Amino acid sequence: MKTLQHITWFVLLAGLSLCQAQEGYKPSSVNQQGKAFPQVNEEGQMRAQILAPEATSVKLDIGGVKYEMTKDAEGVWTGESAPQDVGFHYYQLNIDGASVPDPGTKYFYGAGRWGSGIEIPAADDAIFALRKVPHGKVVENLYFSEITQEWRRNFIYLPPGYMTSDERYPVLYLQHGSFEDETGWSSQGHANLILDNLIADGKAEPMIIVMDNGYAYKLDAPKEGRPESVFEEVMLDEIIPMTDKQFRTLADREHRAIAGLSMGANQTMRILMNNLDTFSYYGGFSGTSNYPSSDPIDVKTFLNGAFADGKTVDDQLNLFWLGLGTKEPAPFPKSVGAFKDMLDQEGINYSFYESPGTAHEWHTWRRCLYEYAQKLFED
Amino acid sequence: MKTLQHITWFVLLAGLSLCQAQEGYKPSSVNQQGKAFPQVNEEGQMRAQILAPEATSVKLDIGGVKYEMTKDAEGVWTGESAPQDVGFHYYQLNIDGASVPDPGTKYFYGAGRWGSGIEIPAADDAIFALRKVPHGKVVENLYFSEITQEWRRNFIYLPPGYMTSDERYPVLYLQHGSFEDETGWSSQGHANLILDNLIADGKAEPMIIVMDNGYAYKLDAPKEGRPESVFEEVMLDEIIPMTDKQFRTLADREHRAIAGLSMGANQTMRILMNNLDTFSYYGGFSGTSNYPSSDPIDVKTFLNGAFADGKTVDDQLNLFWLGLGTKEPAPFPKSVGAFKDMLDQEGINYSFYESPGTAHEWHTWRRCLYEYAQKLFED
Repeated sequence: MKTLQHITWFVLLAGLSLCQAQEGYKPSSVNQQGKAFPQVNEEGQMRAQILAPEATSVKLDIGGVKYEMTKDAEGVWTGESAPQDVGFHYYQLNIDGASVPDPGTKYFYGAGRWGSGIEIPAADDAIFALRKVPHGKVVENLYFSEITQEWRRNFIYLPPGYMTSDERYPVLYLQHGSFEDETGWSSQGHANLILDNLIADGKAEPMIIVMDNGYAYKLDAPKEGRPESVFEEVMLDEIIPMTDKQFRTLADREHRAIAGLSMGANQTMRILMNNLDTFSYYGGFSGTSNYPSSDPIDVKTFLNGAFADGKTVDDQLNLFWLGLGTKEPAPFPKSVGAFKDMLDQEGINYSFYESPGTAHEWHTWRRCLYEYAQKLFED
Repeated sequence: MKTLQHITWFVLLAGLSLCQAQEGYKPSSVNQQGKAFPQVNEEGQMRAQILAPEATSVKLDIGGVKYEMTKDAEGVWTGESAPQDVGFHYYQLNIDGASVPDPGTKYFYGAGRWGSGIEIPAADDAIFALRKVPHGKVVENLYFSEITQEWRRNFIYLPPGYMTSDERYPVLYLQHGSFEDETGWSSQGHANLILDNLIADGKAEPMIIVMDNGYAYKLDAPKEGRPESVFEEVMLDEIIPMTDKQFRTLADREHRAIAGLSMGANQTMRILMNNLDTFSYYGGFSGTSNYPSSDPIDVKTFLNGAFADGKTVDDQLNLFWLGLGTKEPAPFPKSVGAFKDMLDQEGINYSFYESPGTAHEWHTWRRCLYEYAQKLFED
């Protein structure tokens, strides 16, 4: 009898707990207007829902896990994920074996496709809140690359006041990660809103941000295997001259920064070290050029010995900034760790920021930009 | 025997024809990079394909018709539509009762949702081709409306040369249709590319184009029923002053045009006639303010008698331009027809353009913009 009472009590508690969790679900902030699903609760779980009356199996596919959804009498399938890290995650639905975007969300480019996203609220979402402060503009710029012989596109953030002043501004070249594109930083990355807020609060200098596409190959590059990237060439010979020609930039290394996330951190570090006459500020968010290795770095051979004369490198750079989420998976912690060890050994100063409770995802990179942008172009 | 020969011949021909049609399918121009499906053939049919091994029914849903798709041994479903009109169409897939976007396409806002689109090639696609000519920029502009007490967004086309000159430009305010938004004209509408090409060819004056969202309601508008639109107020008191303040405009009625498609044609005609001191050029693409009526217009009461003094209206307007697709459904042909009858009776000059072979869809409106923009701001 006592056992039965315990069980009853447990069941009641469990039911109550479930009920409370369900009441706590709210529509995600990146849903399409008027769409009630997907939803998120305070524990960071997401709940998806879709009408699929004739389906026999519907799954919610997020973070590498497929969660079974269940059908009600009207043919509406509902399912919840385990708690997710705060921030933005790509996900999809799987309907009888078909992987498709959730019709409830806006769409974002990542994981090599346009697809659904969900936003798990974080305590520091105010860094990209749409506040009543002066807002910069995001400009879509189409250009033909003579190097790749293809049309390319970038997005350019112009700070508040740009359109109505004659002022010149420093420039940050800011790159996305692998399987992402030039849309990421001003969409799920909120680079524009982060800068608007920092500038309004007097925490960052007004600056131009150029967000380009890190994939660039010669038209005649072999289709088999991994083609050689010509992104550095495009950046140096096309993107920077075009930016300096079309916008009111301060066109020297003292007013030029380059940064990127993951693949973009790797790429921009190489570009920086090959072109220290062009850039004086660096930011590497969740990545370094020794990726994916975690081995101790041989400074004589790494990037053709670019870091071998530590003192000269240190003198030349105004800022060498690294950031990483505390929950990043292998190989990032050890690979970035090996890189830091090399900097320490060479006596090169750097900043290292850790994003608490986030992995290799956009909330880490939003925080990185928020921290990094405050250190740029200080006189 | 003769009959049998005939049948054999017919079957052979049919098989050959089918084979040729299949070979003629090519990936749609608005697919995601690297996606082979959906495809389009020269007859204007579309072919969709999706892996859904456990599904029992998959349909291609386009133009109000659901086409059954068929499954192969690997669980890949394939299906074709009937021939579609040239131009851009919204569509979706239906998997065991679930209506979802096709993971093969880019996504567009229309029909009240972000979803898939397909482009059926037209003979005149060159009007929006990405050519090696100087390109303008599309600027994303966020603003807080004091009237609606909400954040709003518009996109602003700045013509080639804007960023590097001190010149002032005339402005076209260009509106989307119902269940669409501020993204339509510079995405599936290609307003920027149409103008880039016209300007490069010396066929249109360089101009600024402001593309806003036609849905605007007071925050305290009743949630039940149809709330009263305050878009005219937002346009006159917020959008135009903001545009004139932030961009180098020629800020008078002689250098200001207003146009829209469908719902936007209806809205902008009302705004025009209430504000003839503000605009001197009008364009109505697939719509007029007597919509949905096809009855003869009582000029004394229509829009509070705005057209009653035909001579004055005619003197005041630099251009009154109407366009319509030859395949538009009811009530558009008769409703626009009734409106034209009224203009004829009042002796008001107007241009009327017919888009051959297109209905109430984007290719009609791209052609309208192409024709209309050539008539604007001529000295």
